[in-house]
Amino acid sequence: MTKVAILGGSGYTALELIKILLRHPGVEIVAVTSRQRDTPRLAELHPSLTGRIDLRCEPFDPDRLAARGVQFAFSCLPHGASMSAVPALLQRGMRAIDLSADYRLRDPNVYAQWYGESHEDLAHLAQAVYGLPELYGDDIATAQLVANPGCYPQTGILGLAPLIAERAIELRHIVIDSKSGVSGAGRTPKLTTHFPECNESVSAYQVGKHRHTPEIEQALSEVAGEAVEVLFTPHLIPMNRGIFSTIYAVPRRPLTERELLEMYRAYYARAPFVRVVEHLPATKDCSGTNFFDVTVRVVRETIVVLACEDNLIRGASGVAVQNFNRMVGHDERTALLP
Amino acid sequence: MTKVAILGGSGYTALELIKILLRHPGVEIVAVTSRQRDTPRLAELHPSLTGRIDLRCEPFDPDRLAARGVQFAFSCLPHGASMSAVPALLQRGMRAIDLSADYRLRDPNVYAQWYGESHEDLAHLAQAVYGLPELYGDDIATAQLVANPGCYPQTGILGLAPLIAERAIELRHIVIDSKSGVSGAGRTPKLTTHFPECNESVSAYQVGKHRHTPEIEQALSEVAGEAVEVLFTPHLIPMNRGIFSTIYAVPRRPLTERELLEMYRAYYARAPFVRVVEHLPATKDCSGTNFFDVTVRVVRETIVVLACEDNLIRGASGVAVQNFNRMVGHDERTALLP
Amino acid sequence: MTKVAILGGSGYTALELIKILLRHPGVEIVAVTSRQRDTPRLAELHPSLTGRIDLRCEPFDPDRLAARGVQFAFSCLPHGASMSAVPALLQRGMRAIDLSADYRLRDPNVYAQWYGESHEDLAHLAQAVYGLPELYGDDIATAQLVANPGCYPQTGILGLAPLIAERAIELRHIVIDSKSGVSGAGRTPKLTTHFPECNESVSAYQVGKHRHTPEIEQALSEVAGEAVEVLFTPHLIPMNRGIFSTIYAVPRRPLTERELLEMYRAYYARAPFVRVVEHLPATKDCSGTNFFDVTVRVVRETIVVLACEDNLIRGASGVAVQNFNRMVGHDERTALLP
Amino acid sequence: MTKVAILGGSGYTALELIKILLRHPGVEIVAVTSRQRDTPRLAELHPSLTGRIDLRCEPFDPDRLAARGVQFAFSCLPHGASMSAVPALLQRGMRAIDLSADYRLRDPNVYAQWYGESHEDLAHLAQAVYGLPELYGDDIATAQLVANPGCYPQTGILGLAPLIAERAIELRHIVIDSKSGVSGAGRTPKLTTHFPECNESVSAYQVGKHRHTPEIEQALSEVAGEAVEVLFTPHLIPMNRGIFSTIYAVPRRPLTERELLEMYRAYYARAPFVRVVEHLPATKDCSGTNFFDVTVRVVRETIVVLACEDNLIRGASGVAVQNFNRMVGHDERTALLP
Repeated sequence: MTKVAILGGSGYTALELIKILLRHPGVEIVAVTSRQRDTPRLAELHPSLTGRIDLRCEPFDPDRLAARGVQFAFSCLPHGASMSAVPALLQRGMRAIDLSADYRLRDPNVYAQWYGESHEDLAHLAQAVYGLPELYGDDIATAQLVANPGCYPQTGILGLAPLIAERAIELRHIVIDSKSGVSGAGRTPKLTTHFPECNESVSAYQVGKHRHTPEIEQALSEVAGEAVEVLFTPHLIPMNRGIFSTIYAVPRRPLTERELLEMYRAYYARAPFVRVVEHLPATKDCSGTNFFDVTVRVVRETIVVLACEDNLIRGASGVAVQNFNRMVGHDERTALLP
Repeated sequence: MTKVAILGGSGYTALELIKILLRHPGVEIVAVTSRQRDTPRLAELHPSLTGRIDLRCEPFDPDRLAARGVQFAFSCLPHGASMSAVPALLQRGMRAIDLSADYRLRDPNVYAQWYGESHEDLAHLAQAVYGLPELYGDDIATAQLVANPGCYPQTGILGLAPLIAERAIELRHIVIDSKSGVSGAGRTPKLTTHFPECNESVSAYQVGKHRHTPEIEQALSEVAGEAVEVLFTPHLIPMNRGIFSTIYAVPRRPLTERELLEMYRAYYARAPFVRVVEHLPATKDCSGTNFFDVTVRVVRETIVVLACEDNLIRGASGVAVQNFNRMVGHDERTALLP
Repeated sequence: MTKVAILGGSGYTALELIKILLRHPGVEIVAVTSRQRDTPRLAELHPSLTGRIDLRCEPFDPDRLAARGVQFAFSCLPHGASMSAVPALLQRGMRAIDLSADYRLRDPNVYAQWYGESHEDLAHLAQAVYGLPELYGDDIATAQLVANPGCYPQTGILGLAPLIAERAIELRHIVIDSKSGVSGAGRTPKLTTHFPECNESVSAYQVGKHRHTPEIEQALSEVAGEAVEVLFTPHLIPMNRGIFSTIYAVPRRPLTERELLEMYRAYYARAPFVRVVEHLPATKDCSGTNFFDVTVRVVRETIVVLACEDNLIRGASGVAVQNFNRMVGHDERTALLP
Repeated sequence: MTKVAILGGSGYTALELIKILLRHPGVEIVAVTSRQRDTPRLAELHPSLTGRIDLRCEPFDPDRLAARGVQFAFSCLPHGASMSAVPALLQRGMRAIDLSADYRLRDPNVYAQWYGESHEDLAHLAQAVYGLPELYGDDIATAQLVANPGCYPQTGILGLAPLIAERAIELRHIVIDSKSGVSGAGRTPKLTTHFPECNESVSAYQVGKHRHTPEIEQALSEVAGEAVEVLFTPHLIPMNRGIFSTIYAVPRRPLTERELLEMYRAYYARAPFVRVVEHLPATKDCSGTNFFDVTVRVVRETIVVLACEDNLIRGASGVAVQNFNRMVGHDERTALLP
């Protein structure tokens, strides 16, 4: 039984994480921290937890967590806040998964450029493992600190990795056109996520400027062994959950859809949460699950990858537990089959 | 051509009001005020107005408005703020329609009780006319100040007025169960109106405490000539616009559905925006219009009134223009037929 | 390990049932039948099941099911079809839960009156147990045939049972105003459930005529020991899942909210899926779960019960598994805690 | 006053067309035909028209229409049906706008290839004018038959025309990634447009096979004077109305965003319904209007065009009235400013 603490309990990823961990046979949730002044009961913050867990949020205090035997921490804090809190836990010997972006980008200059502030924990950044189990599974198993991947990046990376590994596409002019439900924007009310502003509407946002761009390029460049450049365009869709990414790439050699599907099936043969399907996937079919659904088409001599996932489960809290399972030695699927 | 000013231009009712007034042949929008520090162009606040109107918001300055010949003001300010601004305009000879709740309740004690603050403009409160054209049409025509009715109250009042006028129902244990789209909560982001919080969910709110209760009771009591008591329960529905009210009342004498429909048709014979229908109405069929759709059923010896409207048009800005038309002498329907 | 067959695999309740049973440690799904000519794979009917279950739908053949050792059947067939299929299974010694309305109404005349056709299986109707575990839990445990309750009725019955058991309310002029997501209408496309027809709209339907009315009255009359009469009004809400019922009843004696909440807590003290809450519940907080959330208010001398559930889980497939657990001897919660 | 007939009155485009024509000062709607056996009143088909128009649908009879003085017909029939009905009207001297796809593709072989049936009215096909006013405005003015453009194609054509006219982009590997509300799929219930199937989900459909592809290529090739090839991917979005297209093209020469915006402003200088904006547009801001909103960005050496419209107004019935205005000699904007 692993004693677990969750940092930053008020948001959507924390809620989903708690729900998954409540059904995990090897986990005991010992503490949930919150930066709110008062210390609300979890069921007040998240009424859906009524009768499920009887914990009160507490201020972040690494010594107190250590004293209570916490062995493992999940940080659901926003970027910036996470790298302020996580080091104290690692120094006390805990292992951690950080769901923020703070430890994802290996190069602190890239972090500074896209996130607008200097990285303040270079030591741990250097040892953090990028937590995409299908690509970095072995490193994850032994890591002390795992940087849980972003929701959008997973669709781009998992959607393109087989093509890049097989040197099947050009590494420039790759377009990732993504459509996301609104929970991806977090739980803090803003005008752009105010119901009447985003219901019955579609729009693109942060075109050419979204911080998930370098994360996608970092992982795909590691697969390629050379620089990969993507054009990533996120769109806001009037639904709660789900990301659908439509990816366009120019093939280096003629490939049929059959050959491409085989390529994907081979690449993901040992990945229990990647479903290579022949039909056109829809976000509703992986909603609430840790599955990543993907198919491939060839149109006008372009390869079109169609991929989707639940942005909060596969895109955040589900893959975090998948990483946890690898780190602690559970079956990768524990608590994750719906 | 009436020179018009709009106070409080950043919300949804102001936006709808501007759209209606832009197609009104007898109106020139001279000024739109805003309490925001900067003075944004209207099209920045409301991108849908791009290319439609070239005005910059300005701070509220009654002398400046008077100097520019403003004859008529619509206040879209929130309650409290409205009674601070409107008097200065009335004193300068302008006429006004206040879309807030500030001048709706004749009794300042009732105002204080439900709104939690004292009324600060008793003089104008005493002369204000409640702006429900179907009930107070003649008074509206000559008023200097009209208190535009609330969105929920109109469904309750118009839905019950024929029954009460005909002494057809008991005046207690009347239930008004209302379902509203989210734009009724205004444009200020809050957790309760954050997209992922209200999408895919229904709930009741302010049960027994909603401020529209005394407004409904005031108007219905005036129709009855004695006290009417209603139990009003608002619910939040995951849609942008529309209010649907299901009203339950106990009849004093047996009445058939045919007789009831006739009663409603007779009562609203001269009301161009009330549609007494035989089918069960749906909010989508009056969405974006100034129509109020209503039908009646008898079930288990109870009268069930089913009524709906667009909360922003009929429930606010449309009925405001209907009132304006009566006040200035236009055909009641000007600019309001979709 | 109980060998289970599911009749009628193409709809939403079958899909949810399969998902729950896939995580039930005591169940093996042996067969899923369908009335479709071809015999599609389950993952073709329901792409979300891809990689989860490898079964092909088959025509209904009771001998074949018996030969394969099926011990238990869930019928997700529509009413009418269910009472044609279920008897053959019971005669072969299987136990069954019928999710249709065919065995819910004890009086075949009431069935004929509301469903427009004669009941054709009076023998089993006489022995069927109404499957609401909180009221009929002991009878369910030993039943051969359980009539799983309707989605709306559960909110009305569970919402009112404590008040009626305690003789706290008048038994007439009870209003149940219910709001349901669209999945409650089933999976067969119709104009009323066509996306652009029900999105961004609310309406009432089948006012005074909905077939769940006699089901609610039957159970509540059994609690009361005398006839209970309810006025039930269903509304269609633009969301996939969830039912919210707002219930109005006239008290026989003055009761405070505190006393009422205590009454509910006592009545449901041993019901693990009923959550008596103090806040106003919202469907999103029990969505995807078997929980029934309820609170009580007193307004204008009327008792207002606010209750909600997931219409497909608690309202159908979840409570079916709760019944199954009681019938077979599992912990009532097996496979049902989210 | 032009006497107008509408063929095929039961769908969404007919409904929107009727609403627009009801406020057109130069139009009298004389007849609405329907292929339904009975002849329902329009307000029965479309309850939102209650009290707005008192017409009964009638079977299609060209002689009867001619006898009643019909001068102009709008066909809202589906493709195939339209080319069976329209010729009889043209032969009787009427002018017509066909909102189906039947007269859009100049080459009957392309029609046969994409629509799976031979064209049966080659004579009128040869003389039909493609009804995109911003490109073919002069020809439209004098045409007898106008082929109203498709909803998706307008976003692709208007979004790319300035770039192609200015020879600014490569004519291959152009990606048009479009997101459409569900009303674009018409009013006939199907599983794919059943509310619970498309709500809370996004998916692509007809990837590489959508019939609007050749329509986009035809118009853009005429602008280019040589063959243009596009890769068009439509997606279904859980909202009623609106199309958002994100278009990716490779520039032939370096261009700044400022230069590109100037290029668009110049190209559409005389187009009252095209709004070249600097902010990222959203479908809600042109919903219910005839506006086409567009902006341009440069990302990773790729030009990204972001364009949106209301699929039923600008995408169908609004542009039809814009065409009608040009054909009959009204100001292009008559009845179309919201």
